[in-house]
Amino acid sequence: MTIQILFSAKDDRWPQYNGPLTHALQQAGITDFNLSRDIAPEAVDYIVMAPNGPVQDFSPYTNCKAVLNLWAGVENIVGNPTLTQPLTRMVDHGLTRGMVEWVTGHVLRHHLGMDAHILGQDGIWRSDIPPLAEQRPVTILGMGELGTACAEALVMLGFDVTGWSRSPKDIPGVRCLNGEGGLRKALSTAQILVLLLPKTPETENVLNVQHIALMPQGAMVINPGRGPLIDDQAMIAALDSGQIAHATLDVFRVEPLPPEHPYWAHPSVTVTPHIASETRDDTASQVIAENVRRGEAGEPFLHLVDPKLGY
Amino acid sequence: MTIQILFSAKDDRWPQYNGPLTHALQQAGITDFNLSRDIAPEAVDYIVMAPNGPVQDFSPYTNCKAVLNLWAGVENIVGNPTLTQPLTRMVDHGLTRGMVEWVTGHVLRHHLGMDAHILGQDGIWRSDIPPLAEQRPVTILGMGELGTACAEALVMLGFDVTGWSRSPKDIPGVRCLNGEGGLRKALSTAQILVLLLPKTPETENVLNVQHIALMPQGAMVINPGRGPLIDDQAMIAALDSGQIAHATLDVFRVEPLPPEHPYWAHPSVTVTPHIASETRDDTASQVIAENVRRGEAGEPFLHLVDPKLGY
Repeated sequence: MTIQILFSAKDDRWPQYNGPLTHALQQAGITDFNLSRDIAPEAVDYIVMAPNGPVQDFSPYTNCKAVLNLWAGVENIVGNPTLTQPLTRMVDHGLTRGMVEWVTGHVLRHHLGMDAHILGQDGIWRSDIPPLAEQRPVTILGMGELGTACAEALVMLGFDVTGWSRSPKDIPGVRCLNGEGGLRKALSTAQILVLLLPKTPETENVLNVQHIALMPQGAMVINPGRGPLIDDQAMIAALDSGQIAHATLDVFRVEPLPPEHPYWAHPSVTVTPHIASETRDDTASQVIAENVRRGEAGEPFLHLVDPKLGY
Repeated sequence: MTIQILFSAKDDRWPQYNGPLTHALQQAGITDFNLSRDIAPEAVDYIVMAPNGPVQDFSPYTNCKAVLNLWAGVENIVGNPTLTQPLTRMVDHGLTRGMVEWVTGHVLRHHLGMDAHILGQDGIWRSDIPPLAEQRPVTILGMGELGTACAEALVMLGFDVTGWSRSPKDIPGVRCLNGEGGLRKALSTAQILVLLLPKTPETENVLNVQHIALMPQGAMVINPGRGPLIDDQAMIAALDSGQIAHATLDVFRVEPLPPEHPYWAHPSVTVTPHIASETRDDTASQVIAENVRRGEAGEPFLHLVDPKLGY
């Protein structure tokens, strides 16, 4: 029987994903399928979706075997009371590599003090040598797929890496901490702090006045995770006081970040436009196709979301 | 008998190195030594030196077993006709790691297009996603200790790395080329080019008009190697025409780079003040001490310079 796969995302995603998904499904050995944006709900076997696509009510999809999200973040779906089907999130090779490149690049930028040279081409020879990475403590909050991959790259480059996560982890070369006591310790050494936590009620405003005060004076913050991880008022106060020397922020509560937002004009903030990482159509399509194959074969889905944890 | 070790470098290096060298010699099991800036030439067993230090005539040091250079570059000593003693160059863990950090950081900076964000905090949300590193060909000219270490780090980050050297090399994950034909091929794919060749008569002006013309249009050049590797006039012309989109230069024919030099004012050039890497006193002292130990034990010296090759 033909496998019915509904594609539900913004209009411009359909020409982007139609070809790669068709190709990936065929490569996964699935030959009899109908990939379409218009299928009667009760006939749908799988929904491939973006959280900002047309399907917001999952209740008519009574025969749907799984909802396969194209995005890594699921905070806008996981609380949807109509969602009773299994939900998977995207763990994409391209997304992970892109995140590792962006995080490693900005950690090195702050470590090496590049901005002083990029912004200061004034003929003055300022020959301060930065310390070695082995003398630079970096803390990553959130040790999921992305946080772990970033930690491994930073360890390879010689950084002194601490990783904090909700549950205990064991990653070679990384000082792994967990729990509230672990969080305080992880923050206390963070000359460079990278935020890669999922957005859940527990992680919202994790970087608040109290937690910022635990960090070493002059620390640098890099947020490619989720905008609401940061209490923006506390962050701006800490940047003004010098407690935080610089923040490089890729994600925000409202995106695009409005031109009048104080982050744009703050001399100690670098705004980047949610580019740290994005799902890549070719590699993401392979993950979707593999999950359709698993669903048909009765095998467990990859990257299944736990509704209780929220990710 | 007391081992006589002459220290010959600029005055400010003595307080920097006296402690670390003494400590490292003791750690290497050498107990009976005299480390000093003032020893009768015929009594000297080893000279620990910087090329810009007081000893420029080696002929009075008739019993000297080796000249141990504190710098990686030996171009200012190797041609000295009074030098008949074995010469070693510095291969320092700290120097290598510092170079890997600087090169990896600036390659990622150019790969990710960071400057557009660092210099353009104007409220405009420019959401172009950079390609993945696996789609970014990087070429390194010079695959010695430093070039090889940088290539390995870039491979780990996923870059498509080509390495060119005078003699054939075999480095896992790196497309290794050599010879003039190999150089043309290595340049032809170099979206980002890193110069890590030693300065020899053969490598001077390796980046000249002809070789720049072989590179892809809009390529980026990173030079942490030696200033004379670049034909400066050819480089400025290529930057003006857009053949080279950006040059990040750490080394120059004259240092400090004079304030009136056109590189400082060029919008497509980033000058950094010879900070890509520097010998670190603690780790370098361990290398010097190990070579004294080897000299006393009759073992071959580490990092011996071949006067014919010039490095």
